[in-house]
Amino acid sequence: MRPDPEAKLAALGLTLPTPPKPVAAYIPCRRSGSLLFVSGQIPMKDGTLMAQGAVPGKVSPEVAKQCARQCVLNALAVAKAELGSLATIKQVVRLGVFVCSEPGFHGQPQVANGASELLVEVFGDAGRHARAAVGSIDLPLGAPVEVEFLFEVE
Amino acid sequence: MRPDPEAKLAALGLTLPTPPKPVAAYIPCRRSGSLLFVSGQIPMKDGTLMAQGAVPGKVSPEVAKQCARQCVLNALAVAKAELGSLATIKQVVRLGVFVCSEPGFHGQPQVANGASELLVEVFGDAGRHARAAVGSIDLPLGAPVEVEFLFEVE
Amino acid sequence: MRPDPEAKLAALGLTLPTPPKPVAAYIPCRRSGSLLFVSGQIPMKDGTLMAQGAVPGKVSPEVAKQCARQCVLNALAVAKAELGSLATIKQVVRLGVFVCSEPGFHGQPQVANGASELLVEVFGDAGRHARAAVGSIDLPLGAPVEVEFLFEVE
Repeated sequence: MRPDPEAKLAALGLTLPTPPKPVAAYIPCRRSGSLLFVSGQIPMKDGTLMAQGAVPGKVSPEVAKQCARQCVLNALAVAKAELGSLATIKQVVRLGVFVCSEPGFHGQPQVANGASELLVEVFGDAGRHARAAVGSIDLPLGAPVEVEFLFEVE
Repeated sequence: MRPDPEAKLAALGLTLPTPPKPVAAYIPCRRSGSLLFVSGQIPMKDGTLMAQGAVPGKVSPEVAKQCARQCVLNALAVAKAELGSLATIKQVVRLGVFVCSEPGFHGQPQVANGASELLVEVFGDAGRHARAAVGSIDLPLGAPVEVEFLFEVE
Repeated sequence: MRPDPEAKLAALGLTLPTPPKPVAAYIPCRRSGSLLFVSGQIPMKDGTLMAQGAVPGKVSPEVAKQCARQCVLNALAVAKAELGSLATIKQVVRLGVFVCSEPGFHGQPQVANGASELLVEVFGDAGRHARAAVGSIDLPLGAPVEVEFLFEVE
């Protein structure tokens, strides 16, 4: 039996933040059929960015990995606001992970694992997903990481 | 009742360009079921790029925002050529926005709003969408912006 | 009648590599309905990267194009392991192509054509696809190219 993702979050001592409000013409997520596309999330926590700048000079890979994990919490908050319950997520389909990188930094996958591993902790095998992790010269607000999500929902 | 997107374009004084021809092995769009994926569009207008280079040094954020708007017109031209009528677009699902950025430029969302806002002007609430906006070190032909689109169609 | 993609690969003298094993919490591909999302592939060949670094200084555009072609072989190996046969691929839907670029390199489309052209060689018209090709400041392991794939399957 599939783990209850919200119980799992609680067992991990994690609480979902208040979902971000739409800040522009775009919205936090859009559903099409059984696919839920969640907009690119940056590591906002309690109203501020957890870290700012490129990896590894200004932000260490380990901190960036924690930032990727925070992006998941923000995305799950968006999904829960849309769906009512995270239990309606059948599987995580795809992640697009952008890591603000200095030239010569090749560790985007290790940073992205912060997001991927938390999804597996929360959803079990249904949390495994396809992924593209790439470097970016700069990201909104100077975020070290941005992650977008595609979920399959009931 | 949903606004007629082509009437709305006309009311805005906007005309769709001639859709770009396939220039390589890839094509301007591909449909799979109710999803229409439109290839990354750059701000070509009357056969030339509206601007060239990175934001904000060579291209100002305001000009880049206008470029993002032009990418929408180019994408709608592609969609109309494929679908016959833009009225068959049920909703805009997702945008991927790449902004050619100098290090230290964090304003990708403001640039991307040029695309997002025009879609809402044309399609109303159905034009709202999920979005990832990121910086890119360089883009095809030196474009300041590239935008790819996912539409849900009838 | 549609060409048999595996016979076509053989006629081109191409053999699929052993598909990569999951190296982290993410997996090589995830299916949702008729859509198969394949994770970002880098040009690994016989266990090593074919080239490393940015285009065009460290890696020539021509070599990068060959790398993009290798990404296709790696993705098809993933797809075959998932599907049993490549003949169940109905069409190629979308490619996301990231080219590790020095500032001032605008030839991402030519590099990406290495992937697009091979897909058309193998699948015929069903191999044509929507595409976004952009520059990236750096990629996993220092790869010059990363390509992610979306296939429609039976």
